[in-house]
Amino acid sequence: MGNTFGSLFRITTFGESHGGGVGVIIDGCPPRLEISPEEIQVDLDRRRPGQSKITTPRKEADQCEILSGVFEGKTLGTPIAILVRNKDARSQDYNEMAVKYRPSHADATYEAKYGIRNWQGGGRSSARETIGRVAAGAIAKKILAQFNGVEIVAYVKSIQDIEATVDSNTVTLEQVESNIVRCPDEECAEKMIERIDQVLRQKDSIGGVVECAIRNAPKGLGEPVFDKLEADLAKAMMSLPATKGFEFGSGFAGTLLTGSQHNDEYYLDEAGEWRTRTNRSGGVQGGISNGEPIIMRIAFKPTATIGQEQKTVSNIGEETTLAAKGRHDPCVLPRAVPMVEAMAALVLCDHLLRFQAQCKTL
Amino acid sequence: MGNTFGSLFRITTFGESHGGGVGVIIDGCPPRLEISPEEIQVDLDRRRPGQSKITTPRKEADQCEILSGVFEGKTLGTPIAILVRNKDARSQDYNEMAVKYRPSHADATYEAKYGIRNWQGGGRSSARETIGRVAAGAIAKKILAQFNGVEIVAYVKSIQDIEATVDSNTVTLEQVESNIVRCPDEECAEKMIERIDQVLRQKDSIGGVVECAIRNAPKGLGEPVFDKLEADLAKAMMSLPATKGFEFGSGFAGTLLTGSQHNDEYYLDEAGEWRTRTNRSGGVQGGISNGEPIIMRIAFKPTATIGQEQKTVSNIGEETTLAAKGRHDPCVLPRAVPMVEAMAALVLCDHLLRFQAQCKTL
Amino acid sequence: MGNTFGSLFRITTFGESHGGGVGVIIDGCPPRLEISPEEIQVDLDRRRPGQSKITTPRKEADQCEILSGVFEGKTLGTPIAILVRNKDARSQDYNEMAVKYRPSHADATYEAKYGIRNWQGGGRSSARETIGRVAAGAIAKKILAQFNGVEIVAYVKSIQDIEATVDSNTVTLEQVESNIVRCPDEECAEKMIERIDQVLRQKDSIGGVVECAIRNAPKGLGEPVFDKLEADLAKAMMSLPATKGFEFGSGFAGTLLTGSQHNDEYYLDEAGEWRTRTNRSGGVQGGISNGEPIIMRIAFKPTATIGQEQKTVSNIGEETTLAAKGRHDPCVLPRAVPMVEAMAALVLCDHLLRFQAQCKTL
Amino acid sequence: MGNTFGSLFRITTFGESHGGGVGVIIDGCPPRLEISPEEIQVDLDRRRPGQSKITTPRKEADQCEILSGVFEGKTLGTPIAILVRNKDARSQDYNEMAVKYRPSHADATYEAKYGIRNWQGGGRSSARETIGRVAAGAIAKKILAQFNGVEIVAYVKSIQDIEATVDSNTVTLEQVESNIVRCPDEECAEKMIERIDQVLRQKDSIGGVVECAIRNAPKGLGEPVFDKLEADLAKAMMSLPATKGFEFGSGFAGTLLTGSQHNDEYYLDEAGEWRTRTNRSGGVQGGISNGEPIIMRIAFKPTATIGQEQKTVSNIGEETTLAAKGRHDPCVLPRAVPMVEAMAALVLCDHLLRFQAQCKTL
Repeated sequence: MGNTFGSLFRITTFGESHGGGVGVIIDGCPPRLEISPEEIQVDLDRRRPGQSKITTPRKEADQCEILSGVFEGKTLGTPIAILVRNKDARSQDYNEMAVKYRPSHADATYEAKYGIRNWQGGGRSSARETIGRVAAGAIAKKILAQFNGVEIVAYVKSIQDIEATVDSNTVTLEQVESNIVRCPDEECAEKMIERIDQVLRQKDSIGGVVECAIRNAPKGLGEPVFDKLEADLAKAMMSLPATKGFEFGSGFAGTLLTGSQHNDEYYLDEAGEWRTRTNRSGGVQGGISNGEPIIMRIAFKPTATIGQEQKTVSNIGEETTLAAKGRHDPCVLPRAVPMVEAMAALVLCDHLLRFQAQCKTL
Repeated sequence: MGNTFGSLFRITTFGESHGGGVGVIIDGCPPRLEISPEEIQVDLDRRRPGQSKITTPRKEADQCEILSGVFEGKTLGTPIAILVRNKDARSQDYNEMAVKYRPSHADATYEAKYGIRNWQGGGRSSARETIGRVAAGAIAKKILAQFNGVEIVAYVKSIQDIEATVDSNTVTLEQVESNIVRCPDEECAEKMIERIDQVLRQKDSIGGVVECAIRNAPKGLGEPVFDKLEADLAKAMMSLPATKGFEFGSGFAGTLLTGSQHNDEYYLDEAGEWRTRTNRSGGVQGGISNGEPIIMRIAFKPTATIGQEQKTVSNIGEETTLAAKGRHDPCVLPRAVPMVEAMAALVLCDHLLRFQAQCKTL
Repeated sequence: MGNTFGSLFRITTFGESHGGGVGVIIDGCPPRLEISPEEIQVDLDRRRPGQSKITTPRKEADQCEILSGVFEGKTLGTPIAILVRNKDARSQDYNEMAVKYRPSHADATYEAKYGIRNWQGGGRSSARETIGRVAAGAIAKKILAQFNGVEIVAYVKSIQDIEATVDSNTVTLEQVESNIVRCPDEECAEKMIERIDQVLRQKDSIGGVVECAIRNAPKGLGEPVFDKLEADLAKAMMSLPATKGFEFGSGFAGTLLTGSQHNDEYYLDEAGEWRTRTNRSGGVQGGISNGEPIIMRIAFKPTATIGQEQKTVSNIGEETTLAAKGRHDPCVLPRAVPMVEAMAALVLCDHLLRFQAQCKTL
Repeated sequence: MGNTFGSLFRITTFGESHGGGVGVIIDGCPPRLEISPEEIQVDLDRRRPGQSKITTPRKEADQCEILSGVFEGKTLGTPIAILVRNKDARSQDYNEMAVKYRPSHADATYEAKYGIRNWQGGGRSSARETIGRVAAGAIAKKILAQFNGVEIVAYVKSIQDIEATVDSNTVTLEQVESNIVRCPDEECAEKMIERIDQVLRQKDSIGGVVECAIRNAPKGLGEPVFDKLEADLAKAMMSLPATKGFEFGSGFAGTLLTGSQHNDEYYLDEAGEWRTRTNRSGGVQGGISNGEPIIMRIAFKPTATIGQEQKTVSNIGEETTLAAKGRHDPCVLPRAVPMVEAMAALVLCDHLLRFQAQCKTL
């Protein structure tokens, strides 16, 4: 239970890191949308391990197959099932981890909850699970782009204490993809890459913050009082592996301001439409989009699996130590960028359909 | 749409700030639980306006009536409906706001979305809506306490830059309730009260951070991969009015550490149970509770409605200014404490039932 | 759990036969719909006990109050809460039934399931629970009528072996309401009334079949493969008290035909639109409406509570006998007619919104 | 939207008759259940085309692959994905049907709804979609058997006017499987086979009724007021292709009786447990199982696709005629038996988990 996300644009993911494969079923995709495996593959390749020297060397082509829901290049309005086979399964790396719990990983809690665990790897808690999300997100992004020109751009905002300067109103996908760390501030990107490299050599890991901007979202998306747009975005992001925090607009820093400093004054633009001069609201007021860019930041902790020796316990109740073998990302941030985009797209697309259902009537 | 929260312990709230009343239906409450209106009233009184000199003077007794689902003092297993009548409705304060949108409030977005708005007050976006949540949370807290002695304690962690020192492992409800700002660090509390007082006189407002600890939660709660415990907590908190951020465990600050610094090493306690020495995980690993205290922090922005004059627009498309009349909280934090507790309790209770459904079988 | 129906036009009902009251929250009603308590009351009065000599003499005005979601006569797009107070609570009639289970009633199963029961009456299993459904149905019918002139007409098709002849394509609400048994075949209606009268004098009860026609539904409603239109209608009807069967179109009788006899041939009408010459499909093909009238029949068993003495057991584990006191309908059919209409309207309205969400896009 | 069934034991199916394949994701399966592809295959083989002379000669091995959720022969508590590839795709049989709508089939309504259709075959409306249901049902049946020895036996009750005599309290799977029509009344079965044979030669089709008995279900399953056990069973069955009616217990025939004839009197068995002497309630009272066998009947119409020439229209708006080529079942009943069993198992398993969630607490 818990493997379905969304109400009207609804995805269900499946798969462990080792076994037949991973994938997704998308239910609720509007019919007659042109979509190809190649378009989906673009985002999968951005998520793929082994894409650069600063990601895990685990080599997986992660080639996707569309099993259903698309006919002659167009969606049928029926469930779209997408499958990616597991291939590079060096599960011998996990022999030791079969009995020893990796600190701050999900090994111990999965075993406590289910009384069983696929010890060949991270199992269901592996980041491979996000393949289904990213594939579904590629379709959601296409719907959004066609609908209202909605654009979603995510990027690495900080790695440890190295923080980039980025204009979220104008940054482009091309700028993000111009370097392997996916930080559009070039100078900063170099420092980040150097830092990751250094940490990798120390068999350690680091974290950081991804920022995401959604532009051209129409006014009116979000369903108070529980399915507020930011509430669904928060859930989406906090369901990604390794996330520790979510904020939008002014975020935690906004708590330092007074109301008179914080409030976004309204004005009328040339078309007579109300807009806000500042955007501390982050594009959402009262849980509903206000037409301004929706801006959020997501904190990712340092990767739990590291090569350094750490104290831990085994599943037969003994205290022991573990120095993880296997191949792991020293920093998940570069590969987290397409995941964040995907989750943002899924939430927006779902709310777009919900808006159409209720508020366009009568 | 969007007014239901939870899957097995499920609440649906209703009501605007002006009109017949506000309330909640709780569906899925286990039968044979002893519950009285008086127990629910305790938390409603902590949420109530007019409770102290630093909250809005709007006077509402907020007396609750249980309409169904309880018989001879015990729950029936059927839906529990709770109603609180609206009383002190000085809607004349809102005459100006009927046409002018309050900056950073939900007035404009509600009108954009629905094409209609109850202009007598905040309508559905009013904090009065949380009455239903708090009433349901009181019941959820009782279930949790009986089940495993689960305790939930929330408190004001900071007001603007005034930050309290609190031990989340030991802080008690009594300590929280010992002052009107609900900050268990007495010295800090005094400064906070003074600051709020000062801001009130300036017709301005301020925000801050609420911290919440859930103690004695068993291992195993949380449903990966989308309904991870922290994901549902994030959604719950970000659905509260005025929230801008959510973090748990090490949160955003954790992004500054390396993996070797951040990871929580395991050890065996005297009972032979695995535990962690540190708690940067915040009680959750891989979306599943690990038995340690679940610690989270929620950012609340400064109240949007202020008495100072601000630039805005009207719903007939004119630029104008507004200095809000009416009676508003200069700082929502003290009243947000029971709201945060309620949402935490609702999430935990829902996941407790989900755990019982799937993982206790066979 | 289980007290919510619908996905986009979603109702949650609450209340027992004795206690504060019964009612409903409607979430997902489109905004700006004109609606008044008086319009809702029309259907509640058709459902009300004591409305004629052939229904239970239990007297309840069943006056409804709209607590939220409507402002200046129009829906806000927020949850609509409707409350009807319980009044005529002669619970002393139930003293004996507090310990003795009524045969074929829900007394025993509720106690087995929940370990507790409101013994003052039928509790949650009472037909009073349908008040919330009928109130919500009145709103749903108004939406449907405005949307596409969708009409829903239900009527008593048979009482025991007395079967009416009714043209489901043309029958009107006025014809249905022209007599107290709600059978538009006047001659037949007289026989039915006489039969019910006779059964009442024998302290016994009888059942029958309600037929329901939905006209002017557009093509395209229904969400295969599980939320087919007929599947949701079946669930809706089988959730009503005392129902034992559901069929649509040719129904069980259709199993006697061959495919060549049963198939509905297509033709083009004057507007060039495809239609079917016959309607054995009952307006639904492959789970999706085809534009023809949607025709269904629902079997209602004889009322379980009767004045005759029957063998039963008590909740303290003794075999005993029971002759029910209290005031009960000898035949639920006349009052079931508005319930069937309401459930049909709720399903159609939900599917109308779902259609708008997915299939109108792009 | 609409391709997910169940709340806690929840399946999502995917796939069209032509394309990559069909399958299912099962979410909520308890962990540590032993399950093998071979066990699932048993039921898939009972559903498979080409299994006997009275089913369609379309030859498909329908071999299943478990993609995820099972490790070393045991369920992990994570989503179980099962895939069956499409193989024998003679889509040239459908060239004519690409433009001509088969009468009483879903071709026309799918095109009306989605504006697109996989014309290579039945697409999503094909009975191939039920492969996922049957695979999931095999797992659900195993859970039920282990839990409380719950048994589900379905069989052909009638073909046209040929009606079998079967004792639903004692009939076994072996008796059902003893002949190709799956009717445990041997004499009757021969007549049925002869009738189907005859109809096949006439290029026509016939329908009938499947009866299903669920035995050893505990008291207490079912979630009033909307998710009553019979309501969920009705929806489950009416979501199967070609169904036209559902009844349980006394069903439509029960409307001919009086209450004194219909009511099931209670008695105490040797263990002191209350039971009913008769079972006109069909094992459910007030929406909750009462421990007696749950008995239901489902009407299946004659197959829509027949070889005889029929009048119809084309998707370019012309009246025409169609004599279907391709290979179709003259009667779906024998293959519908495992589908009915599967749907019954899914509903029971879901309600078992729901019961565990709410009613076992405190």
